[in-house]
Formats: sequence, structure tokens, C-alpha cells
Amino acid sequence: MMDYILRINMNSLEIKKDPVPADLERFGGRSFIGKILSEEVPPKCHPLGQNNKLIFAAGLLAGTGFPNSCRISVGGKSPLTGGIKESNSGGRFAYEMVHLALRGLIVEGKPTMDAKNNEELYTAVIESDNVELVETSELKNKGNYETVSWLRRKFGSRIATASIGPAGELKLSGATIAFSDLFGVPDRHAGRGGLGAIMGSKSLKAMVLKPAKRREMKFRDEASFKDVSQSFGKKLIETKRVFSKFGTPVMIDVCNEHGGLPTQNFRRGRFNKVDKISGNKLHELLVERNGKFGLPCSPSCCVKCSNRFNDASGKPVTKIEYETIAMMGSNLLIDDYDVIARMNYLCNDLGLDTIETGNALAVLMESSLLDFGDHEKVLQILTGLYKGDILSRIVGSGAAVVGKIFGVDRVPVVKGQALPAYDPRVFKGMAATFAVSPMGADHTAGPAIPGRAGLDPNKDYGSLTDNVGKIDLTKDLHYVVAMLEAMGCCYFIYHNQIMEKVSTCLEALHGWKLSPDDLLQMGKDIIKREIEFNENAGLSRTDDLPEFFRSELLPETEDVYDIPENAVKTAWDDLF
Amino acid sequence: MMDYILRINMNSLEIKKDPVPADLERFGGRSFIGKILSEEVPPKCHPLGQNNKLIFAAGLLAGTGFPNSCRISVGGKSPLTGGIKESNSGGRFAYEMVHLALRGLIVEGKPTMDAKNNEELYTAVIESDNVELVETSELKNKGNYETVSWLRRKFGSRIATASIGPAGELKLSGATIAFSDLFGVPDRHAGRGGLGAIMGSKSLKAMVLKPAKRREMKFRDEASFKDVSQSFGKKLIETKRVFSKFGTPVMIDVCNEHGGLPTQNFRRGRFNKVDKISGNKLHELLVERNGKFGLPCSPSCCVKCSNRFNDASGKPVTKIEYETIAMMGSNLLIDDYDVIARMNYLCNDLGLDTIETGNALAVLMESSLLDFGDHEKVLQILTGLYKGDILSRIVGSGAAVVGKIFGVDRVPVVKGQALPAYDPRVFKGMAATFAVSPMGADHTAGPAIPGRAGLDPNKDYGSLTDNVGKIDLTKDLHYVVAMLEAMGCCYFIYHNQIMEKVSTCLEALHGWKLSPDDLLQMGKDIIKREIEFNENAGLSRTDDLPEFFRSELLPETEDVYDIPENAVKTAWDDLF
Repeated sequence: MMDYILRINMNSLEIKKDPVPADLERFGGRSFIGKILSEEVPPKCHPLGQNNKLIFAAGLLAGTGFPNSCRISVGGKSPLTGGIKESNSGGRFAYEMVHLALRGLIVEGKPTMDAKNNEELYTAVIESDNVELVETSELKNKGNYETVSWLRRKFGSRIATASIGPAGELKLSGATIAFSDLFGVPDRHAGRGGLGAIMGSKSLKAMVLKPAKRREMKFRDEASFKDVSQSFGKKLIETKRVFSKFGTPVMIDVCNEHGGLPTQNFRRGRFNKVDKISGNKLHELLVERNGKFGLPCSPSCCVKCSNRFNDASGKPVTKIEYETIAMMGSNLLIDDYDVIARMNYLCNDLGLDTIETGNALAVLMESSLLDFGDHEKVLQILTGLYKGDILSRIVGSGAAVVGKIFGVDRVPVVKGQALPAYDPRVFKGMAATFAVSPMGADHTAGPAIPGRAGLDPNKDYGSLTDNVGKIDLTKDLHYVVAMLEAMGCCYFIYHNQIMEKVSTCLEALHGWKLSPDDLLQMGKDIIKREIEFNENAGLSRTDDLPEFFRSELLPETEDVYDIPENAVKTAWDDLF
Repeated sequence: MMDYILRINMNSLEIKKDPVPADLERFGGRSFIGKILSEEVPPKCHPLGQNNKLIFAAGLLAGTGFPNSCRISVGGKSPLTGGIKESNSGGRFAYEMVHLALRGLIVEGKPTMDAKNNEELYTAVIESDNVELVETSELKNKGNYETVSWLRRKFGSRIATASIGPAGELKLSGATIAFSDLFGVPDRHAGRGGLGAIMGSKSLKAMVLKPAKRREMKFRDEASFKDVSQSFGKKLIETKRVFSKFGTPVMIDVCNEHGGLPTQNFRRGRFNKVDKISGNKLHELLVERNGKFGLPCSPSCCVKCSNRFNDASGKPVTKIEYETIAMMGSNLLIDDYDVIARMNYLCNDLGLDTIETGNALAVLMESSLLDFGDHEKVLQILTGLYKGDILSRIVGSGAAVVGKIFGVDRVPVVKGQALPAYDPRVFKGMAATFAVSPMGADHTAGPAIPGRAGLDPNKDYGSLTDNVGKIDLTKDLHYVVAMLEAMGCCYFIYHNQIMEKVSTCLEALHGWKLSPDDLLQMGKDIIKREIEFNENAGLSRTDDLPEFFRSELLPETEDVYDIPENAVKTAWDDLF
């Protein structure tokens, strides 16, 4: 199978398609992004400048039918953290890339015009034998939903899209890239790190993949591949039933029970109105209003944690996930699913990260400008972004910027990126992840949540809520997740035999002989390369959580974040 | 002479006065700040949080009559850069500290109240036998001028003050601390790095020093001290006549001639209306309107580069300096001294750094929100800060934040601090200073401007505008300046024999035997300690200038910033 790399230069408007060179053969998804960034992007470049690149990459198992292997990785130098960023999303984009024989898609340069008159806005339309940059300035300031409807009318309803909303066009650090889901709705987002702002800086509103002729996968040993892959898929379906019923929102109950559900800007760990935003409550509403649950986010997904939330009249609003419910619900003292879904919808349409924006609103609520729970004003602020309101832009720039402008010192960010919905005083493995991840605070980087411990039977990772072995735990998770994200896989498929399964399938597909240890090394190499990029960009090897987590007792558990500072600081040193 | 350290805890409202401990005996001004910060402040603390400290320190030669030795150093972990910050200012504060026998003044903690109801605002009133925290909430949101008038009415016209304006109360990263000058007017500022925001975070509006009984200086060898000190003073008066006539604004002409006067957000190096903002033009206006020039900024100053600018009716407006004229004039395409003086006045009153704010406005002018030269809107934005307008807060948060919110990639900052008025493509020694200084972009850290080269006769520092030897040049300047700032001295007294003079005078005063080499080592130790603080805070050892200086030709000189990246990166490695 010959794969290609497509390069689109937004400065010269030139397009180039080259076969994947030999030294990139074994790089996909997250590892492809790290490799290209470290070789081609000056680490100290301005994230919104001429020299940053926006990279889309399919994983090494994408399109093979291996469970959950069709996520799309996007990356670049992050406008939010100033460091490396890989963010991945569901949708059909990676799947179509495979059939277009595209391993990676690299957007380079930017139009030479100043911010005062950036009138031009392009859409890249990609089909198997033709790539075109179409001027689509009529999409200026349009939300993702309207944008994708328009694109589907123009280019056919079967296209897969990546697009930005007004937030991306305004180059805000909280801007996402939206991907159309399996139904053509742009509800899947590469949410974290402000990648939408890079796309906006390049005046690229959208990318359209026209479905190509289905490509025959060529296996070295198809029987062996299917044997492992299909039985694994079946197993996932059986074991993840709770996720396909309740989805990630089941975590609301779990985290609240542990006293680690972010509430009122991480002031508390339990929400007194948790019943109104629980996983059960959501499930009730989904059933009652003819919503959907158990939906896959991308082709080959066997976990099916996604859903579709309808309003009271039964009209679809959006999919809704745990992180959004917590960061836009309990953490803002908002207890109404209809409000949360509306906020989620607006963020999706504007192209804003719900985790970052939830935190940004929470920090704003620390100031005299906004009260906790004031959802009417919250909706006003979000809606204001369509008009470019200044307060809306501030919120869209993320929690750290809100803190700067309004003089707030309780700002839950690491490397400038806001915390996902796990209080680090309770979930100490997550705390370690937030502190040391090259991505900044990112739960997916080392998802040390309930039930994920126990990677290495010879290591003592401690219990969920103590600080024993948590640096080891997050590191071991980082390596596996990084490897999985190079495959294009969702980290939900992680379990004790995952290395063996990937090893067998890579050999059955490509003939590569990569032992589980080699795959572990692949994960280490990915992390090491990312840290090197960060260090060259001027970031430090690790960071730490904001000091208030070390000093403020969480009332519910009477605990603080207490992973020793030196353990955090030296976490990655053995890689170097 | 027994010196004391006064500690004011804004959390407990406790006050403590201890003799300077033996290990701090030889620390003053900038070195005192570095020492206290590295020993007492957690490098990763939030700059506006409970654990940051605001430190005021007099230099080791303050009050002795040594030329230009009465500047006041202020420091803390910078809200702007996130690293260490020492900023110094003229005024009478250090002089009064000496007579109150205070080497250092450390403000710790902050009231435990959230941003929503910080109603209390304190003034610390310090006399020789009494220190009091007075609640002065009536000063809330008052500008520095009104604040200090009120304080002088209440506590006597001979007080020396440090105060913040609305910018400091709002905890903006561009906020200064204002010091009353020799006439009691709060026109001198510790401008850089947002130290006013730390003071605001601690709910401290002002500090009042009541004049103490004049303290007799005790010299080991008074004759020798006076011999060196007085002849040095006379020499300075003779050689710095151009400064006492034209002040720093003479640099407008010099920099424009070299093609390195920042113009239109560093797009050009010469201003076509330079005649309207030149040093000559200012001098004409000063004479014509009965303004003043040749004013000292602090007791013992022999350079006298300060002035007082009057409006057309002859009413005093403000002092006005080179950096302000360039960054609020040519760099914004504003060519009217009355407008620039008005902007300067507003910044002084609001307590905003004119360099940071000038740059912030220039970056805003890159966006569609403001046009270059639109001084009416500029004045509106500045005035809007009294009402807490959101756009005004953004501008007051500095150039980097403006760039983030409005998606601008031509943002002239290093470590988040905006560039002073020397285009780094022309003034390559300054470029090196901006790149490597632990303070971020700060011309005073290693002032490699015309006439200051040639420190070490054995080194080749190249010419003013080439890149030869510039890392060596800035390092050598850094060491001397750091040492001088530990003495309390203005760097304008720098010349080839300065080490010998300081050495002789320290021995004549204290009996310390410190050779010129020991003083050089003192400078190195200061820089090293500052870099260590930064590294522990998560900053990198050096940074570099924004990439556009490397890629955009300056039209006038057809030059780019070209100090090799690796030379920048490794600049300080020999200290470690």
C-alpha cells in the first residue's frame, strides 16, 4: 500500500503530494505529528505565524477494522501552551484519508496579509485525483454547523470535513477543529490546545475529503489479523456495556462519589445538585426525549460511548460528554442539562474547547464580572463571540488569559492549559498526568482513572487516591497511550494485553516485527521527542499543578495534592 | 550602622522589624531582592497569590553621597514574565529608607478574601519608631496623583511614597509602582514586570515613609570616600551635559539616524515625522513653555536627565523620557508631544508601564480594533481603565496578552515582556540583552547602546550594528549593571573605572575589601541566582527574540536580527 503526504501551502497556494518517505513509514497519528514538528517547525516560532504547521495524520492501523482505530490526530505548535500539541478526535476524517491513501496532511505557511484585512478564506477540497483550494469567503464567521451544511450542499452529503468556527477565525487559543461525525454533523472536535487558531491563522476555513473508491487493505496475514482484531472487538463490546449505555457521563457519579468532581472552580469535590447532572439523569433524558446512546464516534469503534441529546421538544442538540458536563455544570454551579447542552452546542458551533471554556468561565466567576451559576450571562458571553465581543474573546482565549486580565490567582492550568474534570487532590494519578504531560493538563495523556491501574505487576502504583507510585503510573500510561495514538486508536481500548494485540496485528498487516517491548519503546520515543520539542520551545521538562492544589484542603476528602515536587521535576529524566 | 528589615504581612496584618542578618549584610538593592526571592518565595507560586513577596530594597551605597546611588529597587515574582523581577526607580524612597535604617522592606501574604469583595485597601505608614497599617479604602480606584496628594495632606508634605493606581488595584501585568519624586510628585516608576499588580494583590495601596531624623553616615575612611565620590560626581556633571540638557530624549535622534527607532510596531526604523518628536523639539517646548530640564531623579544624582513637560498653557503635565516618546510616539505613528505627554500622564496616574503599554497599543493596532496613529481612541482606551473597561484591562495586561486575544503574531516580547525602544536588527548588543536577560526584554539589564561598548580591552565586541561579540558584550554589561544595582546606582554612571571606584568606596564606607574582580563576581552571582530562580519557575535559561526579527528585513538598514541561535541558547552556560 503506497501512502502519500499531502502538503498545502497557504502562502503560495501550492499543493504537493509525495509518497511517504522510508523514514516516516512507521510513523502515524501522534508519532507522525511529533516527527514532522520536530523536523520541520522551529520550536520558537509564533504559533500563529508563517512557520507553524498544522498536521492531520491517520494512525498506523486506521482503516483496518482494528477496534477503535480510526481517530484522527491533529497537531502543531500550540497557541495555548506554546509547546507541542497533538489532539485527536472521532469522526470519519481518518477513515477517508485512508481511502484517499493519505497518511498525513500538512498545512503550511499563511497568506501574507495583516490582521486588518484578512478577507480571504479558503476551503481545501481533496479527492483522490485532485486537490483544490476554493475561496469560500461566504463562510466567514459562520458556525461549524452552518459551515458543514453548506459544504455538504456544495460538495455532496458524503464528504468528511474538518472545519473551524468563529473562534478559530479569531485565532483564539481555545479554538478547536471540528470533524463531521458518522452522520455528517460536525460534532467531533480536536478540542485541546487551540489548534483551530492555527487553522484560522492560515485562513483555512475547512477541509473537505470527498469519498474515494474503497481501497482494498492488503494484509500479510489476513486471517491472523482478523482473528485477533475481531475477537478483541467482541470482547470490547461485551466489557464496555456500561459505556455504551451511559457513555462517559457515568463518571459524574463515580467522581462525585470519590469527592473529586470539580465543583465551583475546584473549590469542592461534590456537587449538591449532582442528581440533576448525573449519568443516570442523562440516560433518563435520552430515553424520554428519543435521544440516542451507544453511538460510535468513528468507524470501527466498539466502545460506543457517544450519544445524541435532544431538547424538550425532541430536537437534536448535540452529543454530550463527561468533561463537558462537569466543567460546564458542577464546576460553574450549573445544574440543568438543557443549559449545559446549549453551552455545548454553542461551543461546538463556535469551535471552542468545552474543557478550556468551562474553566475560563469558572475563573471569570472568581471575579466581580460573573457569578457562579449565572447561566444566562454565560450564554450571552458565548453567543457574543459571533459578534466578536471582547469579553467573549477573552473567555475563548482560555482560563490563563482570563486569570491574567481579571487578576485571579485560582487558575487551574498547567502549561497554560486548563484542567480536565478530575480534582487532582483526589485522583492522584491524574494529578501526576497533568503535572508531567508534555501536552499540559490533559487527562487523555495518561488516563489514570478508576480501573486503569496495574500496568506492570511488579510495580506498586498505590491506590487510586494516594500518592504512591503515581509518577510511575502516569509514565507507563503515557507510553501506552502515545503508542495507541500512533495507531489511531482511542485509549479506551487499553487493557493488559494491548501491546500483544497491536504487535500481532502490525505484523499481520505490514509484516513488521515489533515486540511488545518495541511498542513500549515506540511510546517512549514519542514522549521523548515531544519533550525535546517543548524544551527547545523554551518550556520546562515538567511543570507542576497550581500551588492552590497543594495548600487548599478539598473539604470533602480533607486532602491536598501531595506528589513530591522533586518527583514531578525529575519524572522524565530517565528518558534522557 | 545597624540596618533593619521590615516585614509587613498583609494576611495577618502583623509587622516585624529585624536587624539585617549577617548573611545578608552584603546584599542590597537588586542582590537583596534576588537573595530573598530565592530563599523565601516558591518559584512556582502564583505571582498574585499568598506566597509571592514584594520587596523594596535600598542599595549598599544609598545615602552616602556616592553619585546616583539612591535609586530604589523593587522586586518579586513577576506577574508579566512569571520569572524573577527587579525594577528600579528614582524618587526619594531609598533615601528615606536609609534614614529609617531600613535595608529592605518585605510585603508578604495577602488578605484572605476573594476577588469579588476586596473592599479593604491599606496604606503602610512607616516612621522610625512606629509602623502602622491604615485602612485607606477611600483611595480605591484613585490615580497616583490624587492618591499622593491625599497622603501628603494626611501625613505631611515631606513624606516619600510608593503607590499604585487603578492598574495595580486591578492586578494588571503592566502595572507599576509609583514613587514620589524630589518634589513629592509620583512621577517616578518601577515600571517593568507588573510589580504594581503584586502590590494590588496584597491590597496595599501605598507605603508612606515619614522623614526620620537625619542619620549620620559612619565611614571607615571618610576622606578617601569623599575624595573618590566627589571627584567622580564632578566628572559626571561635566561629561553628561548633553543628558542634563536634552535628557534621554536625545536618543530619538540617535536611534532614528541609525535606522533603529521603533516605528509602527517595529515595521520601520525611521519615523518620517521624527522632527516633531525629537530631543531638540522637546527641548524647544520645554524652554518655550517654562518647563524644566536637568532635573535629578533622586538624591545624589549627577547626571540629571529628567525634565518636566508643561502643556501649552504652561501647566506641568509629566516628566517625559526616551522610551516613552518612542513607544508611544513613533511606534504608534503618533507625532505630537502634547498627545504623548498626555498618554504618559495617564499611564503615570493609572500606574501603567509606558513601554509595555506602548507596545500593547502597537499590537492592538495590528488588529482591526485600532488604527496606527489614532490617538483619540488611544486616549479613550487609557482613560477607560478608570472605569475598568475590558479593552483597557487587556491593554494594561501587556503586549503578549493583546496578541493572544486579537490573534496577532507580530508581538515584540521576550519572556512575555515587551521590547524597549531599540530595534534589535540595528542595535545588536541590545538584541542580545533582550534575548538573554533573566528579566525579559529590558534595555537596562545590559545597556549596549552607543558609547557603552569596550568593557574589556582584550575582547572584540564588534561595532554597534554587527553581531560580533554581542553575547560577550551583554554578559559583561549584565555583570556590571547588576553590581551597580546592588549598590543602588543608576547604570548611567557606568564607565571603564567604575569597578575601582565602587571598590574604594565600599572599603572606605564599610571596610569591606572587595577588589574589582570580586565586584565582577558579585555581578555574576546576582545573574546566576536570578537565572536559577527562573529555571525553578519553569522558564528556560535564555529565550530568543520573536521570529519576525530574524525574517523581516528592516527596510532602512536591510538587516535582520542575526545573533546565532546557539550562541543565545548557551549564553549563560559558563556560569553553571
